[in-house]
Amino acid sequence: MACAVDPSSNKNSLLMLPERVKKITRIPASWWAYAWSIGREDQRRAIHALKVGTALTLVSLLYILEPLFKGVGKNAMWAVMTVVVVLEFTAGATICKGLNRGFGTVIAASLAFIIELVAVRSGKVFRGFFVASSVFLIGFAATYLRFFPSIKKNYDYGVVIFLLTFNLITVSSFRQENILPLARDRLSTIAIGCAICLFMSLFVLPNWSGEDLHSRTAHKFEGLARSVEGCVNEYFRDQEKHDNILDKQTSRASIHTGYREVLDSKSSDESLAHYASWEPRHSMQCYSYPWQKYVKLGSVLRHFAYTVAALHGCLESEIQTPTSVRSLFRTPCTRVAREVTKVLQELADSIRNHHRCAPDVLCDHLHEALQDLNSAIRSQPRLFLGSKHGSANSRMLMELNSSKHATSRTALPSFKTDTASILERKNTKADQPSERSERSTLGRTLSKIAITSLEFSEALPFAAFASLLVEMVVRLELVIEEVKELERAANFKEFTRHDHLTIDITCKEEKRNNDGVRLGSHTVSPAAE
Amino acid sequence: MACAVDPSSNKNSLLMLPERVKKITRIPASWWAYAWSIGREDQRRAIHALKVGTALTLVSLLYILEPLFKGVGKNAMWAVMTVVVVLEFTAGATICKGLNRGFGTVIAASLAFIIELVAVRSGKVFRGFFVASSVFLIGFAATYLRFFPSIKKNYDYGVVIFLLTFNLITVSSFRQENILPLARDRLSTIAIGCAICLFMSLFVLPNWSGEDLHSRTAHKFEGLARSVEGCVNEYFRDQEKHDNILDKQTSRASIHTGYREVLDSKSSDESLAHYASWEPRHSMQCYSYPWQKYVKLGSVLRHFAYTVAALHGCLESEIQTPTSVRSLFRTPCTRVAREVTKVLQELADSIRNHHRCAPDVLCDHLHEALQDLNSAIRSQPRLFLGSKHGSANSRMLMELNSSKHATSRTALPSFKTDTASILERKNTKADQPSERSERSTLGRTLSKIAITSLEFSEALPFAAFASLLVEMVVRLELVIEEVKELERAANFKEFTRHDHLTIDITCKEEKRNNDGVRLGSHTVSPAAE
Repeated sequence: MACAVDPSSNKNSLLMLPERVKKITRIPASWWAYAWSIGREDQRRAIHALKVGTALTLVSLLYILEPLFKGVGKNAMWAVMTVVVVLEFTAGATICKGLNRGFGTVIAASLAFIIELVAVRSGKVFRGFFVASSVFLIGFAATYLRFFPSIKKNYDYGVVIFLLTFNLITVSSFRQENILPLARDRLSTIAIGCAICLFMSLFVLPNWSGEDLHSRTAHKFEGLARSVEGCVNEYFRDQEKHDNILDKQTSRASIHTGYREVLDSKSSDESLAHYASWEPRHSMQCYSYPWQKYVKLGSVLRHFAYTVAALHGCLESEIQTPTSVRSLFRTPCTRVAREVTKVLQELADSIRNHHRCAPDVLCDHLHEALQDLNSAIRSQPRLFLGSKHGSANSRMLMELNSSKHATSRTALPSFKTDTASILERKNTKADQPSERSERSTLGRTLSKIAITSLEFSEALPFAAFASLLVEMVVRLELVIEEVKELERAANFKEFTRHDHLTIDITCKEEKRNNDGVRLGSHTVSPAAE
Repeated sequence: MACAVDPSSNKNSLLMLPERVKKITRIPASWWAYAWSIGREDQRRAIHALKVGTALTLVSLLYILEPLFKGVGKNAMWAVMTVVVVLEFTAGATICKGLNRGFGTVIAASLAFIIELVAVRSGKVFRGFFVASSVFLIGFAATYLRFFPSIKKNYDYGVVIFLLTFNLITVSSFRQENILPLARDRLSTIAIGCAICLFMSLFVLPNWSGEDLHSRTAHKFEGLARSVEGCVNEYFRDQEKHDNILDKQTSRASIHTGYREVLDSKSSDESLAHYASWEPRHSMQCYSYPWQKYVKLGSVLRHFAYTVAALHGCLESEIQTPTSVRSLFRTPCTRVAREVTKVLQELADSIRNHHRCAPDVLCDHLHEALQDLNSAIRSQPRLFLGSKHGSANSRMLMELNSSKHATSRTALPSFKTDTASILERKNTKADQPSERSERSTLGRTLSKIAITSLEFSEALPFAAFASLLVEMVVRLELVIEEVKELERAANFKEFTRHDHLTIDITCKEEKRNNDGVRLGSHTVSPAAE
C-alpha cells in the first residue's frame, strides 16, 4: 500500500534496477575470482585437474577409436571407472590406490573362481543358496576386517574393491556359465586404467607426497619461528603506543596460524608419509627413505608447539602482569625468543636444502640469553610478592609483608580494566530476558572467581611466561636431536662452513626482500644479527 | 658347520619341533583373539559387519531369484556396487553418501543427455571430437571443483560419482544410439541399492552419528577431569614412597590419554557433526538440532586441553621445583584441581543425561579453593627468590641476595639427578662412532643450557604450574558458558534440584563401583565430597 502511494519509492526501485542487474552480473565474476584464487594458492591444483581431464580423454579413446574398441569392447567402462577413482593428487596416493585396486581385484577374482569351482557341479537351488551364503560370509568378514587399525590405515580401499569385485563376479557367475573371460576382461581393463593413471601421475608433472612432506616440515619450523617471535613481541608491546586494534588482530592471527598448522598436522603428516612410502625415490639414492622420521619429527614439533600455544595463552589470558612490570624483562625475554627463532630458522633452512645443520646450532648466544633472563629475574625479587609500591631501593621484606594485606584487596587499574571487560562481555551476551536470572547468577559467580584470580601475586603470570620460555628451550633440544636423527637417516649433505655462510647470506637477502613486502602487515622486529 | 658337528643342537631342534608346531597353531588363535578384541571394544562393529553381509545378500537376490532378475536384468550389478560403496557405519554417513550418489548420478545423466542431444545430429568424426572434448572439459572442471573447500567438505563423493556417471554415459552413448534406457536402468538400480542401504542403516539397529558425537562430548569432559586430577596428584606425589616405575608410567599414560583424546578430536568431531546434520532427528523434537554447537564446544574444550597439556608438561619438564617445596602447596593445589574435576564431572553428567547443569555449577568451593591457593603462595614469599637455605623465620632479603651468588653455581641434588639423566640419555643414544664428535659437541652445548636453565629460581616451575591452574579455572568459565549455550540451543531439560541429587547419588555409586574395579590400576585420589 505504502508503495503504491509513495511515487518516490517506485522511482527509486526503477533507478535501482540497473544496479541490481549489475549486482547479478557481478556474481559470475566473483565466482570466477574465487575459482582463480583457489588455483593461484597452489598451481598444482589446476595442473592436476588438467591431468585428470587428459587421462579421461585418453581412456575414452578406447571407446571412440574403432581399432581400440574392437580390442577392448564394452569393458572399457572399467578403465574409465578406474581412472576416475584411482588418479589422485600425488604420485604416492595414486600408486597406493592403484595397487590396492589391482590386488583387491586379483584376490577377489581368485576367491570367486574357487567358489565357482565348488558351485558349478551342484543343482540350481543349492547353488543359489551357496552363492548367497558366501556373499554374506565374505561381506561380513571383509567389513569386519576394515575395523582393524592396520588394515584401515593401509588397505581400506583394497578391501572395498575386493568386496566389490568378489560380489560382482560371484553373483554374475550365477547366470553366466564361464566366468573366466569376465574376470580376465575386468582385470585387463583395470590394468589399462591403472597404467594410464600411473603414467599421468609419475611422468607428467608429478606431485610427490614425499616432497610435499619435506617442504611442509621446513615450513612448520618457519611458522613456529614466526609464532615465537610474534608472541614475545606482542607480550612486551606498549599497549598505549600501538592502539590500532586491527593491527593487533592481524599480528595475533599470524601467531595463531604459525603454531596451529603444526598442531593440526598430525593426520596430514601421517597420510603424506604413508603415500610417500609407496613412491619410488626420484633421486639417485636407492635405499628406503626414512619417511617415518618425518612423522616422528612432526610429533616432537607438536610437543614444542604446545609450549608455544601456552605462551600464546599468556597473551590471551584475562589475568595479566601490568605492562610496567613486564617491560622490566623485555630485553632478556626478547633475546631468548630471538635466539630460539634463529635456531628454528636455521633448522628450517638446513632441512629445506637437504644439508645437515651446524653442530653448534644451539649456540652460546642462547646460553647467554638464558643467563641474562635468569639474572634479570633474580635482580627483581620483589616482583613475586604481589606489591607495586616499593621502589628498587627498599628491599626489606618485612615491610612488604606488612603492606601486602593492605594492597591485596585493591586491584590494580590494569586488572580492573580486565575485570570490567570480562563482565561487560558477559552482560552484552545475556540478551534473552528469560535466561537473565540464571545468567546473572553465573555472572556473579564468574566475576567473583575472576576477581579472586586477579588478586594473585601480579608476577605469577609473568613467572609462567618466563618458565614457558625456558621450557621451550629445553624442548628445542629434543627437536634438534630429532632433526639430527632425521638428517643422519636421510643421509643429508655434510655440513660445511661454506653452506652456512651461503645460507646465512641468502636468508638475510630473503629477509630483506620479505621485510620490504611485508612492511606494515604485522610487526615482526627484524632480528639484529 | 657348527650345527652339523654339535649333536646336542640337533637334538634340541628335534625337541623344539613340537613347540614350534604349537607356536604355529597358536597363531590363528592369537589372530582370533585379536579380532575378538576389536569387536569387544565396540560391539557396533560386529553388528555393522552383519548388516553389510545381510544387505549384500539381499541385493544378490536380485540376481539369484528368477522373477527379480527378469525385472532388473544385468544392471543389478549397479545395485551391488551401490551397497558396497554407500553402506557406512553410521546412518548419517550412509544418507550423506547415498544422496551424494543419487544427485551426482541424476545431474550427470541430465548433462550427458543434453550433450547427446547436440551430438546426435552430427557426423561420426565431429561426434567423436565433441565427446572427447566434453569429457576433457567436464573432467577438468569437476576435478578443479573438488579443491574448493566447501565442495570438498560436503560433496566430494557426489562430484566423483557425477564424473563417473557422466563419462560412462557419454562414452557409451557413442556406440549406443539411445542412451535413455541406459541412464534409466542405471538410475533405477542405484535407487534400489540406496533404498536397501537406507533401510539397513535407518531401521536395523541404527548407529547415529549424532548420538556418537553427544556421548563423545560427555566422554571428553570425563577424560579431562581424569587428566587434571591425575596431573595434580602426580605433581605432588611423594617420589620416595611410590618408586614403582610401572605404576608411575600407567598413571602418566592415563593422564595423557585423557587430554590427548580431546586434542585429537577436531576432524572426527567435524565429520560426525557433518553426518549428524543429515540424520533425521529420532526424538520428538523436530527443529534442527544444533550439531555445530558441539563442534564449537569441542574447540573450546581443546583450548582448555592446551592448559592441561601444559600442566602435564610441568610433570615431564627437566627443570623441577624440589618435592619439599612443592609439598608446601599440596593442599590448596589439590583442592583447586578437585573442584575443577568436580565441575567437569558435573558438566559431563548433565550433557550425558540431556539435563541443564546447575546454575551454580561453578560453585563457591572453587572460589574458596582459589583464595586458599592465593594465600598459600603469599605466605611463602621466599620461594621466589631462588634459595633453599633460609627457614621460614629469616625473612631478610639482603641476606638472601648476598647468599644468592654463592648458591647459584651449586645445583640442588634433585636438579643434578635430572641433568645427569639428560646427559646419560644423550650418551646412550650416541652409539655410532663416526658421529660421536658431532654429538659430543651438541651434548656439551645442551648440557650447558640445561644447567643454565636449572639455575633459575627454583620456584619458577612451580609458579608456572600454579599460574596454569588459575588459567585453567578461567578457561573453565568459557567452557561452562559454551555448555550453557549448547543446552539452551538443544533445549535440554530444565535443571531441578531433584536431578542434581539423583545425579549426585548415581555418580557416587558409580564412583564406588569404579574404584572397586580400578583398584590398583592408577592412583586417583577419591574426591572427598
